[in-house]
Amino acid sequence: MKSLNIVILAAGKGTRMYSEKPKVLHTLAGRPLVQHVIETANTLSPGVSCVVYGHGGEQVPQTLADIVTCFVMQEPQLGTGHAVQQALPLLADDSTTLVLYGDVPLIQANTLHKLLMHPFALNLLTLHMEHPTGYGRIVREQGGKVTAIVEEKDASAELRAIKEVNTGILAAPTGLLRQWLSALKNDNAQGEYYLTDIVAMAVAQGVQVQTAHPTHDWEVLGVNSKQQLAELERLWQHVQAHHLLAQGVTLADPARVDIRGKLTCGRDVEIDIGCIFEGNVHLDHRVRVGAYSIIRESKIESGTHIAPFSLIDHAEVGNDCVIGPYARLRPGTKLHNEVHVGNFVEIKNSEIAAQSKANHLSYIGDSTVGSRVNIGAGTITCNYDGVNKHRTVIGDDAFIGSDTQLVAPVTVGHGATIGAGSTITRDAPAGELTLSRGKQTTITGWQRPKKKPR
Amino acid sequence: MKSLNIVILAAGKGTRMYSEKPKVLHTLAGRPLVQHVIETANTLSPGVSCVVYGHGGEQVPQTLADIVTCFVMQEPQLGTGHAVQQALPLLADDSTTLVLYGDVPLIQANTLHKLLMHPFALNLLTLHMEHPTGYGRIVREQGGKVTAIVEEKDASAELRAIKEVNTGILAAPTGLLRQWLSALKNDNAQGEYYLTDIVAMAVAQGVQVQTAHPTHDWEVLGVNSKQQLAELERLWQHVQAHHLLAQGVTLADPARVDIRGKLTCGRDVEIDIGCIFEGNVHLDHRVRVGAYSIIRESKIESGTHIAPFSLIDHAEVGNDCVIGPYARLRPGTKLHNEVHVGNFVEIKNSEIAAQSKANHLSYIGDSTVGSRVNIGAGTITCNYDGVNKHRTVIGDDAFIGSDTQLVAPVTVGHGATIGAGSTITRDAPAGELTLSRGKQTTITGWQRPKKKPR
Amino acid sequence: MKSLNIVILAAGKGTRMYSEKPKVLHTLAGRPLVQHVIETANTLSPGVSCVVYGHGGEQVPQTLADIVTCFVMQEPQLGTGHAVQQALPLLADDSTTLVLYGDVPLIQANTLHKLLMHPFALNLLTLHMEHPTGYGRIVREQGGKVTAIVEEKDASAELRAIKEVNTGILAAPTGLLRQWLSALKNDNAQGEYYLTDIVAMAVAQGVQVQTAHPTHDWEVLGVNSKQQLAELERLWQHVQAHHLLAQGVTLADPARVDIRGKLTCGRDVEIDIGCIFEGNVHLDHRVRVGAYSIIRESKIESGTHIAPFSLIDHAEVGNDCVIGPYARLRPGTKLHNEVHVGNFVEIKNSEIAAQSKANHLSYIGDSTVGSRVNIGAGTITCNYDGVNKHRTVIGDDAFIGSDTQLVAPVTVGHGATIGAGSTITRDAPAGELTLSRGKQTTITGWQRPKKKPR
Repeated sequence: MKSLNIVILAAGKGTRMYSEKPKVLHTLAGRPLVQHVIETANTLSPGVSCVVYGHGGEQVPQTLADIVTCFVMQEPQLGTGHAVQQALPLLADDSTTLVLYGDVPLIQANTLHKLLMHPFALNLLTLHMEHPTGYGRIVREQGGKVTAIVEEKDASAELRAIKEVNTGILAAPTGLLRQWLSALKNDNAQGEYYLTDIVAMAVAQGVQVQTAHPTHDWEVLGVNSKQQLAELERLWQHVQAHHLLAQGVTLADPARVDIRGKLTCGRDVEIDIGCIFEGNVHLDHRVRVGAYSIIRESKIESGTHIAPFSLIDHAEVGNDCVIGPYARLRPGTKLHNEVHVGNFVEIKNSEIAAQSKANHLSYIGDSTVGSRVNIGAGTITCNYDGVNKHRTVIGDDAFIGSDTQLVAPVTVGHGATIGAGSTITRDAPAGELTLSRGKQTTITGWQRPKKKPR
Repeated sequence: MKSLNIVILAAGKGTRMYSEKPKVLHTLAGRPLVQHVIETANTLSPGVSCVVYGHGGEQVPQTLADIVTCFVMQEPQLGTGHAVQQALPLLADDSTTLVLYGDVPLIQANTLHKLLMHPFALNLLTLHMEHPTGYGRIVREQGGKVTAIVEEKDASAELRAIKEVNTGILAAPTGLLRQWLSALKNDNAQGEYYLTDIVAMAVAQGVQVQTAHPTHDWEVLGVNSKQQLAELERLWQHVQAHHLLAQGVTLADPARVDIRGKLTCGRDVEIDIGCIFEGNVHLDHRVRVGAYSIIRESKIESGTHIAPFSLIDHAEVGNDCVIGPYARLRPGTKLHNEVHVGNFVEIKNSEIAAQSKANHLSYIGDSTVGSRVNIGAGTITCNYDGVNKHRTVIGDDAFIGSDTQLVAPVTVGHGATIGAGSTITRDAPAGELTLSRGKQTTITGWQRPKKKPR
Repeated sequence: MKSLNIVILAAGKGTRMYSEKPKVLHTLAGRPLVQHVIETANTLSPGVSCVVYGHGGEQVPQTLADIVTCFVMQEPQLGTGHAVQQALPLLADDSTTLVLYGDVPLIQANTLHKLLMHPFALNLLTLHMEHPTGYGRIVREQGGKVTAIVEEKDASAELRAIKEVNTGILAAPTGLLRQWLSALKNDNAQGEYYLTDIVAMAVAQGVQVQTAHPTHDWEVLGVNSKQQLAELERLWQHVQAHHLLAQGVTLADPARVDIRGKLTCGRDVEIDIGCIFEGNVHLDHRVRVGAYSIIRESKIESGTHIAPFSLIDHAEVGNDCVIGPYARLRPGTKLHNEVHVGNFVEIKNSEIAAQSKANHLSYIGDSTVGSRVNIGAGTITCNYDGVNKHRTVIGDDAFIGSDTQLVAPVTVGHGATIGAGSTITRDAPAGELTLSRGKQTTITGWQRPKKKPR
């Protein structure tokens, strides 16, 4: 098999997006449009994968530096044919070149496999449309052989009745492509070099023109406006939701779940309305996610229940935990099994061992908490002294009274008890009661303030 | 009138649900599919109501033990006819038997009343479908008399054109049903006993076959996959939302309200987007429920305003209260009139008398609070000493300063004032100022920590 | 040009709303139905704009007192012709009178401009409907001249086939209108005076009858039930969302954004799912609004990020701030640039200068906070002594330790440090460490309570 090159056209401005950002960097399902294309392209293991950029200066290569290595600038932008030409010097003649578009984000790998079946032909991805107005029509002779692509404006009434249209996505032997592109002319109204014109050259030259169709029509939808972006976002969310349903995930409302990345689920997972999943998220068996929860780059083990309005970000949560409602787990949180984190509790960069509980109104940051610890309501780890962050360590079976401040660095020993309302600035010994507290006094005869005259 | 038996077929596995749970226990609008059927069946006051279960072992009878008493196991599962046969020994000959399906949850009582009008006939619930593919067709002779049900696979092109189909739901005299079922044969590809085959027997025997139609087509939709479950959930939510609108309830978006149980409303109730109601909830006149609030098994009196992001669970809320935003009322909360509960406040197992306020960042648990009490921001009732829970009692007109810990058991007297930041471990006398406080001191010359080198 | 009068009919009860409120006071997109009409009418700079009210007593004039000055009571309500007649004594003959309906809220100004092009004609707003059942048909003679409006019940089969219908909205020379209205008869089944009957009089008199069409069909939809209200709400939200998309705003889901007032946006604004905007809201360039945020009457400067579940009400937020998640900014909040307000933090009637942070579990009320101040977790300004509110002032570069109570009126000096857990009742000097704290002690041999027998 010949080696594969992929050229991704990503130079357009996207005037109708009304944005400072180049079009291909607008996000669909949380990632730039062009990143979807690159990730799909990468599954084909191409030899070279090259992004042709232009508008927006270095924003495109800067944003994509981690996932693609080859960038070619197109400046000025003289059409799709000209764009592909910019990449050709980097591509060997005996390879196949596949042309994709940075603003057609949902093209799927199995469609591309179909397009790459004929290594010596010019391969066009075409589509049958009920309302083809505006698209280039695929003209075939009697036997079905493609003879031309005719643009809407050049098409007779008869040709306009054709419902097979060009998507622009194509694959060709690189040597032929180089030869055709060098022969392109720009004698048209826009003064541009059109990639489509190579079809006529292939036909004239007797090179076979093969066609393949996308598995789903939505794979070839492009984005030119925020309206189209929103439509494609919804469509893709619909596709993903129905993929989850087909695997047996329970979704309270498939129209109200947003997956911006990759969500994997075990058996009997239930997701209530309005949840958002970002990045890589795994929900293991029997995990239930309450309404309006947001989970980002996290792993939730089996049997855990996330109550509504929770926000979990770069965290690991063990089995049979109860999280929320209104709980926020920030990056670096690791909860072992059967941990409870309740309402208005924030946890950051902390590890909490099995069966410990922080159920109310607390901030636990930069801490290591043992097993079976009870963290009372209003507990705050004072991890920041204004310049440095310090750690709090709490031993197994400790009981932290409500409204305690643990001024880090500080250690609460195994089995220690901290009295409510204490400010703990030095280590608290294991097994003992430690507290700091003013004496309770009553001031008799004290009068409440009077209402001030206004 | 003859007595009525109801047999509910609930033995299926639901392979396409990809679940450890038997199919009929998956939930629609918060209750198991089969529970909907049982609750509707119970409105007909049946003599015997019997659930035929199989897959999933004792999960079905265990889950339903509170709402139905008769369970019959079908093991092995040899078809619908065989399933009904398991229940027959429990049913008297001179009764009517109605056969329902645990995975057809939305059948409505008035449809069943229509089906039960002819006590001496075999009564079939049938439906006219535009696209009947896959369903058994109802064959009628010239005059309209039903002569047979023909399955899709056995149907000629002519019969396939029939648009009246069998739903499977039927009612028959129990004596005849017993006779017919005992004559069923399983000489078919699956080796199963089909309930449908009794129609041919009735016709042969000259027993009248009557038909009735469901009032709404959706009543006979079954659930075989998570996709169908999600569709039925949405459909049922739509039906319920439009029922509320028809009663005069204002819904900001009928597509974004979820009712999982029974919601009753007084006049001029307004429900903003994204709310969820679970179990029995009553909202009295002029109650306004803010966006994204969740209310479960609660009663809200007239004029009360629930601000967004509130969560109310097993609580009673009086007239003209203001709750939220971000307020959580947990089970056992009882608020009298004109109480205010504000943001990041959690209340549990507590009674709060009229005109009291807890507006910010507090935890009130196991407490009895008088009238006109002001609970300052950050107040925490320390109701748990690690092993036991204790009560906090606060008298009328008390003022609890911010960030106070009330270490229960403790009583704050009528009209008492508690200074901010106090830890109250002993009763605070009525009418006086009580506080515990360290002396405020300034340490001159103290230097802030320096940034640690990394 | 002749001067313009506008008569808005708003006397109906709206029986099918099942409400104590008169129909026109029910809200669409956060404002009463009739207010939409008045605001649109006001853009035409009418000489007199008069609301005819009836049902619900003085509720209509009381609610609308700020935006319209002329009210006429219609009592009893004897039809639309009778309603307009109530306003006529206030209108001069040589003007044009435009008749609008308080329950047809979405009529747009440019449609009304089209209707007002022929000052000497009777101008009818008409609509072509695919299914005109129930509406009065516009009858035209050969040449297209309108000859009559025929009501459904009086229409022959031939006339019923007409698809052009009367919307009821019309404009006429006031003198003619006065003359026609005084000639109206109520010899019909309802005993009402119908405004529509003036068409026949105009035709008989040889006055030209002109027609205009609404730009969008939805402009003439009326509200008679909560179901229609919900439909119109959704339709209007859809219109507004697509208006934002067309301007280049990114909406994660156009079906899940609610705009109840006027939202203006700079470039590259991103709005995640489920947000609500109320009143006048401005989001400047590159503002990102996280999921489920609610913003009311506020201005957010460029580059600021609002994290999910935030609630911002009558606040000003500077450039490059980070707000939320779960942050609540209440009225009177003014944040300068680069301020951070984090989770479970409430700010009210306070000004916070640049680069200051309050990231966790705090209540800041009636405060003036300097630049670069760090407000620790659990900080509470005790601004209320039970009867009066007092201010807290915090100087630049101060560091407020966690769980501090600032008992107002109080000032924390420039660069001061407050130790964690302090109750600050007197001013804290600049540059020094101030704290109030009980001594930390350990009580050896103390035993935890035992589980009480039940």
